[in-house]
Amino acid sequence: MLRSATQTGSVVSVEFSDGSQARFHAIWLRDNALDPETRAPGNGQRLITIGDIPTDISVNAADIVNGDLLVTFQPENKTVTFPSGWLADHTYDRAVEQETGRVAPGITTWERGIAAPSGDWAEVHATPAAKRNWLADVAEYGFAKLTNGPTEPESLLKVAALFGYVRETNYGPYFEVRTEVNPTNLAYTGLGLQAHTDNPYRDPVPTLQILYCLENSAEGGESIVVDGFRAAERLRSDNPEGFALLAGYPARFEYVGSDGVCLRSRRPMIELSPDGEMVGIRFNNRSSAPFVDVPFDQMEAYYAAYRQLGDYIDDPAMGVAFKLEPGESFIVDNTRVLHARLGYSGSGTRWLQGCYADKDGLLSTLAAMDMAKLEAAE
Amino acid sequence: MLRSATQTGSVVSVEFSDGSQARFHAIWLRDNALDPETRAPGNGQRLITIGDIPTDISVNAADIVNGDLLVTFQPENKTVTFPSGWLADHTYDRAVEQETGRVAPGITTWERGIAAPSGDWAEVHATPAAKRNWLADVAEYGFAKLTNGPTEPESLLKVAALFGYVRETNYGPYFEVRTEVNPTNLAYTGLGLQAHTDNPYRDPVPTLQILYCLENSAEGGESIVVDGFRAAERLRSDNPEGFALLAGYPARFEYVGSDGVCLRSRRPMIELSPDGEMVGIRFNNRSSAPFVDVPFDQMEAYYAAYRQLGDYIDDPAMGVAFKLEPGESFIVDNTRVLHARLGYSGSGTRWLQGCYADKDGLLSTLAAMDMAKLEAAE
Repeated sequence: MLRSATQTGSVVSVEFSDGSQARFHAIWLRDNALDPETRAPGNGQRLITIGDIPTDISVNAADIVNGDLLVTFQPENKTVTFPSGWLADHTYDRAVEQETGRVAPGITTWERGIAAPSGDWAEVHATPAAKRNWLADVAEYGFAKLTNGPTEPESLLKVAALFGYVRETNYGPYFEVRTEVNPTNLAYTGLGLQAHTDNPYRDPVPTLQILYCLENSAEGGESIVVDGFRAAERLRSDNPEGFALLAGYPARFEYVGSDGVCLRSRRPMIELSPDGEMVGIRFNNRSSAPFVDVPFDQMEAYYAAYRQLGDYIDDPAMGVAFKLEPGESFIVDNTRVLHARLGYSGSGTRWLQGCYADKDGLLSTLAAMDMAKLEAAE
Repeated sequence: MLRSATQTGSVVSVEFSDGSQARFHAIWLRDNALDPETRAPGNGQRLITIGDIPTDISVNAADIVNGDLLVTFQPENKTVTFPSGWLADHTYDRAVEQETGRVAPGITTWERGIAAPSGDWAEVHATPAAKRNWLADVAEYGFAKLTNGPTEPESLLKVAALFGYVRETNYGPYFEVRTEVNPTNLAYTGLGLQAHTDNPYRDPVPTLQILYCLENSAEGGESIVVDGFRAAERLRSDNPEGFALLAGYPARFEYVGSDGVCLRSRRPMIELSPDGEMVGIRFNNRSSAPFVDVPFDQMEAYYAAYRQLGDYIDDPAMGVAFKLEPGESFIVDNTRVLHARLGYSGSGTRWLQGCYADKDGLLSTLAAMDMAKLEAAE
């Protein structure tokens, strides 16, 4: 509920019933008007362009009616209602300085010791609440296991179908992770792999990866996941200049291992939004190409920060380890959580299938489930 | 060819036969060593991690042998050859200051008046050189037409298969662009659409879009493409502070038009790499959500810059227009080139099919073709 509103022509100031205050510009209110000439009623899309708004847009009346804000714009002489709840949700009049390297709201960073978030195959498929919680874990922690699934090949495609769409690449719609005689990628050997994000040489990177276990009787081959955001937070805390270097200059990544494939990217190891929110980690020793975008005078400090970030990533206090059983899988947010594999050998076999998907589908499915629940409750 | 080399322990300085000089750090050289213990011979992937390199790495010998550089590292006592051509290709010892808002090497920005880059369906399918040039046009100009193709539905999937993979979304593997009775998106009406990038509410956005014409006998419905990088360059030139605002704060985008779909993103209209290279444009009046990440004191200037960018995008001097005939299609780099549609009506029909794909596949196919040609020539 709104208590009062005043206007100066270019700015409307309101006070909410809890005493908090906020200012909104005339141009911002007009652009975001919710009336049916501005927003299509069926699909909510905006019908006007920024150029359709008069350059001399102003407000000449701001009133409270039933607790909501009524604004009249000139020269259009157009009156629009802004619900108080909508205004409270879209306040931008904040004094708070935002910290560089922060994580987005809803993200919880972690180290070894947390219980691995996990869903049960049957429950996640049968119960919307179980599925919702499993998706929410991926959104919050950047990974989650899925247990008690079938052991048929291609079951991983059913995992992707729970929330979105497979991203097909040169590796196929999905790929076999097992020892090959002439591996095009070190993933297809029994070697241990340092914790890494997948395909940093791709732009855009696949933002989700699913790894699904079909056989795992070999010695070793445990999976380890590491929160890249937490590793970056540790770097920022211990060496802020080093954090700024890894965020401030692009690295380079490359993969040219197969015929007809030559993938290259130029993106930083720590990606920030322009206003300093952490939005992505790229870390992969196998596919790092020579870094040529760091100034000569900064290169040694850049390498020192890279080494330090690698030390945190390798730190046993950081990783959550588990050995996948047949029918178990895990999903990682490939823009944030790194995954490692211990080397394996011996008489048994290890056979995983992997595929990529994208976060937009997962976050959309989660948000739509939460929105439907909210609407049902109202 | 190299002429000379000296070393100080932490830095190797070389002089090329053309007289140019470059310095390389010991840690950088060691990390990028090309020997088979450092890089897997078959697939070129790095076998060591940054942590495997001794913290006290140094160089105690740097010599020229057959024009290439031989470096001995301590404490490993390991000698590695760096070909002179490889060193020349990976120099990072540059004094040049890099300009904020520049475009990447190989990108050419444009306005109305350029001949639309175009390939012929049969030639592009039959001739590697024609296909290579068509892909190179997309890489350089951000769009290209493809003419004289079949008029069967799903032909657009064959376009994507020329270089990569379709990105499936909630709109399907591909979608029908024609007038619908209850449109979930304004694209599915006869309304004109301001030039825009597609799906800015998705993260990652689809980096390529293909629009393929099957019928187009309605009045109007012309396609227009606009170089978003050029529009941003004009803004940077005329209003550098405005450019900095659009690049410096995230916008918000949203699409909640269909059941079970709730897509939201927080990304800037003008995306720069951390060192100031222009890497993406997001502009879409229909799906812009309220901007809530711009400080109150900057909001009016932000909106003024947004309006100015929109003016350039709407400027008839900017757009390349064409009316697609059945069997014609075009592909746009959706991170750079905006596309518009004029309104259509009348007795005829307009039926396009659209799909998304990603640039990594296109650029990889192009780079692999160029690399194969280079190797064949050597």
